[in-house]
Amino acid sequence: MATVASDTCATPQPSVCHRVPPLLTDLYQFTMAYAYWRADRHNEHAVFELFFRDNPFSGGFSLFAGLSDCLLFLRDFRFTDEDVEYLRTVLPSNTHPDFFTYLKGLDSSAVSVSAVAEGAVVFARVPLLEVSGPLAVVQLLETSLLCLVNYASLVCTNAARFRLAAGPKLRLMEMGLRRAQGPDGGLTASRYTYIGGFDLTSNALAGRLFGIPVAGTIAHSYVTSFSSLEEVCPKTLVPLRGGDPIELVPLVKDWLGRVCQLLGANLQQVREGELAAFLSYAIAYPCNFLPVIDSYSVRSSGLPCFCAVALALCELQYQPLGVRLDSGDLCSQSLEVCNVFRQCSKHFSVPAFESLIIVGTNSVSEKSLSELKKRDNEIDVVGVGTHLVTCTSQPSLGCVYKLVEVGGQPRMKLSEDPEKSTLPGKKAIYRLLDADGHPQMDLICLSEEPAPKMGQPLNCHPLGLVNAVQSITPAHVTSLRLEVFSHGKIMCPLSSAYASRIHAQTSIQALYAHHKKLEGPESYTVAVSERIHSLVSDIRRGNS
Amino acid sequence: MATVASDTCATPQPSVCHRVPPLLTDLYQFTMAYAYWRADRHNEHAVFELFFRDNPFSGGFSLFAGLSDCLLFLRDFRFTDEDVEYLRTVLPSNTHPDFFTYLKGLDSSAVSVSAVAEGAVVFARVPLLEVSGPLAVVQLLETSLLCLVNYASLVCTNAARFRLAAGPKLRLMEMGLRRAQGPDGGLTASRYTYIGGFDLTSNALAGRLFGIPVAGTIAHSYVTSFSSLEEVCPKTLVPLRGGDPIELVPLVKDWLGRVCQLLGANLQQVREGELAAFLSYAIAYPCNFLPVIDSYSVRSSGLPCFCAVALALCELQYQPLGVRLDSGDLCSQSLEVCNVFRQCSKHFSVPAFESLIIVGTNSVSEKSLSELKKRDNEIDVVGVGTHLVTCTSQPSLGCVYKLVEVGGQPRMKLSEDPEKSTLPGKKAIYRLLDADGHPQMDLICLSEEPAPKMGQPLNCHPLGLVNAVQSITPAHVTSLRLEVFSHGKIMCPLSSAYASRIHAQTSIQALYAHHKKLEGPESYTVAVSERIHSLVSDIRRGNS
Repeated sequence: MATVASDTCATPQPSVCHRVPPLLTDLYQFTMAYAYWRADRHNEHAVFELFFRDNPFSGGFSLFAGLSDCLLFLRDFRFTDEDVEYLRTVLPSNTHPDFFTYLKGLDSSAVSVSAVAEGAVVFARVPLLEVSGPLAVVQLLETSLLCLVNYASLVCTNAARFRLAAGPKLRLMEMGLRRAQGPDGGLTASRYTYIGGFDLTSNALAGRLFGIPVAGTIAHSYVTSFSSLEEVCPKTLVPLRGGDPIELVPLVKDWLGRVCQLLGANLQQVREGELAAFLSYAIAYPCNFLPVIDSYSVRSSGLPCFCAVALALCELQYQPLGVRLDSGDLCSQSLEVCNVFRQCSKHFSVPAFESLIIVGTNSVSEKSLSELKKRDNEIDVVGVGTHLVTCTSQPSLGCVYKLVEVGGQPRMKLSEDPEKSTLPGKKAIYRLLDADGHPQMDLICLSEEPAPKMGQPLNCHPLGLVNAVQSITPAHVTSLRLEVFSHGKIMCPLSSAYASRIHAQTSIQALYAHHKKLEGPESYTVAVSERIHSLVSDIRRGNS
Repeated sequence: MATVASDTCATPQPSVCHRVPPLLTDLYQFTMAYAYWRADRHNEHAVFELFFRDNPFSGGFSLFAGLSDCLLFLRDFRFTDEDVEYLRTVLPSNTHPDFFTYLKGLDSSAVSVSAVAEGAVVFARVPLLEVSGPLAVVQLLETSLLCLVNYASLVCTNAARFRLAAGPKLRLMEMGLRRAQGPDGGLTASRYTYIGGFDLTSNALAGRLFGIPVAGTIAHSYVTSFSSLEEVCPKTLVPLRGGDPIELVPLVKDWLGRVCQLLGANLQQVREGELAAFLSYAIAYPCNFLPVIDSYSVRSSGLPCFCAVALALCELQYQPLGVRLDSGDLCSQSLEVCNVFRQCSKHFSVPAFESLIIVGTNSVSEKSLSELKKRDNEIDVVGVGTHLVTCTSQPSLGCVYKLVEVGGQPRMKLSEDPEKSTLPGKKAIYRLLDADGHPQMDLICLSEEPAPKMGQPLNCHPLGLVNAVQSITPAHVTSLRLEVFSHGKIMCPLSSAYASRIHAQTSIQALYAHHKKLEGPESYTVAVSERIHSLVSDIRRGNS
């Protein structure tokens, strides 16, 4: 690509757009907080868990993301006087005035969080975040935390699926900002699709804030803004290795004639404006020449113009980069374009034409990427926008935030819809690996239980199977969550986008192929310990 | 609903989340700007148009939204020194240093915009925004403007469709923040779904910033946080019309026994925690009692508990509000619940039970709303989250931003894909109405053409039909766009959410029913003038 920032590991910075004001939450958090406060229960110690019930996109896994944003939100959690005055106008008029004083003094200094690492592979029903602290405060955090995790994890998982569909070699560029669900949606998408496995973004702010490599050259509007070679200015270029400036218009015209002859193209059908646009861009950025070639007609105008300008650049020792295709059948066009490059290379003895790249950008979806991988093509970089950033096939992840313990007592929602029931109690989560290091099972235990030991068999109850008992002997055991926030302080270094990307890719790499199949994956086992199983039975019977 | 802010017409304020930094754009805007600058074309006067090619959701119309955000973005458009220093690190190393000085000095003082009003009904292919000014500057605005209009218009249109599906009477509440595509997506959704026809939002920040009525009471976690009546504190309530505080626990227990007897419910199956939660909330907010009743079982526990607490409130002269159902078949449950309310009203002689409301919130989609409208039900308020805010059936609107004139000369993109071609030249847009005031056709003319006159026949060319000519005699003619930004200044009052909502509803009201059918609408005619038709033909022949 024309312009790529170095893959530096930038320190993540909270952006203007990512500062989440604590008032960005549902009103009922305040009515509930008031009711707790009124009943003097607001400082009871409570534990909430954040999890989702199904992997998105009918997939076999997900990536967890959004943690850094959650931590910055928690650190800064404090209502402004204006927030509280607003609440005074919308809460019922009989709300006790002292409650507003209480709200003004609230912060996260009594809140603790344990969480899965940013970018880790995770599965449905596994609690990803555990938030504990005073009942009213941790209740007030619900909506914002859900909002920060849901989309980040969704779009990160989507990107990982695009990467699996594309295979490891194709370079993937995110370019969805204009179609994203708002400016912040666009910025979040750029950040988390990079973590999910994309290589580049078009989004300049994401480059600055998160150190993601950025890329881009020209749009159709640039091409159509030119109508004649007279608009080219300056008209000369100094060869790469020095010397007198060379007049490019006659040189390019000469090359155009030779190219048209070679390709059997009609010189009359070549758009002078397109030639002028390409030439002008090449003079501005002679080392970064990669135009979009379908503003008029690829075959009749865009491709001959590109070849003429690129051959002139080569004559001046510059290496043109390639072309972008933005419409039509990308595979077949890439073959045709590549064939023309080879013809030129051979006919004009320009080996530089062998290493030109082809960028394809035309409503690419996960499905079209999978198809592209199966078909002959010569595409080197694929740009993806809408389907990636808006997650067309499932535009939301259904993370929920459920109370599991209060005042030291386990709590459980026993819905008539069994899928909506929750698992009670404060927990520890373990990932059990087999001898080859592949994840075999995630095991949910009560936090007071001893951790499973490697090499020792244990009985557990896989979720989703009624009364099933499974015995397993893990070769390795890892604890899935870490303490990341305690007493108002962030306890871990905020992971850079680059580091999270590495973690995500390593994490996906470790999965068995059958768990990461894009269609019809085998479901990964998530189980609960015998202790949790009994606790659930007790509560269902009304004994707890 | 429990808590509703007044429908005041608040002055819109730019929120933290809505400040769009100008670096939130695609990198290629800068490489193009540089190429224009290098060719000394950056100050050429250029005109861009923003439009979409298809109405979303296979619908017959759209609502235009996002204008206020665009205007605030334009007014504040200026790169920071940090932005420019970042660009210096990512643009090719041979970028001339004076270009960065140029970027530092850029603002919108030479930019003008004409636009359709916020909330107006619009149609595919009609240019909604026209942005003119120095070529490099108006090019740099592209991505941010698209990002601000695309999602706002999409979600506003989605809300209008939900409103049409629901009919005029059902109250609609937006509650999608936790499932939105990021925090800003959630805030944008709350704002524009209100404009599209929703009545309420759960989003407190949206209430504060945009004056939207907010609502909400309690979640399941509140209910499950209680396990015993001992947790109820305080345990007394003063009757509405004064008197001694009344002990509520015995009163409610008494009512519960009578309710169970009336309904044939088993007192043993009633969850004491649920009763305690409802009672505690009722004591905190006796005028705003509206609990969620499906934490355990609606029939065995939630509904008897509600009735008991509500009857106790009635005895103390308070008016309970109603219940919320969050799972299962909302229609059939609402009938059952309403039937119980009538039984209680009759049996206990409590007329207040006749006016209890039922709120339904369970993955409501446009389709399920349409079905709900057809079925018997007693639902008064529907809360909608995921499907509304993420626009599940089409999560992005494809607005594009195309160059139509530069240096006084019309420009056109002539793609091999005819759908991707653009209409050249600076334009004026008229809406032609029939004698009843219904929109008949949108007519796109060159700005230099005289406006169509009422009562005078004219010939035009409907888009999407090859070589079709249509004659029309408009009864009324309105100009669809206004000058909203000129020389760096906002030229119109920023419309409040409330005013835009009124405009949207009036605008939809005026449409013929066949244009606003949710499925299989008749397509509305958008036509170009004969002058534009000839200009396109000239350019296609290469004559312009």
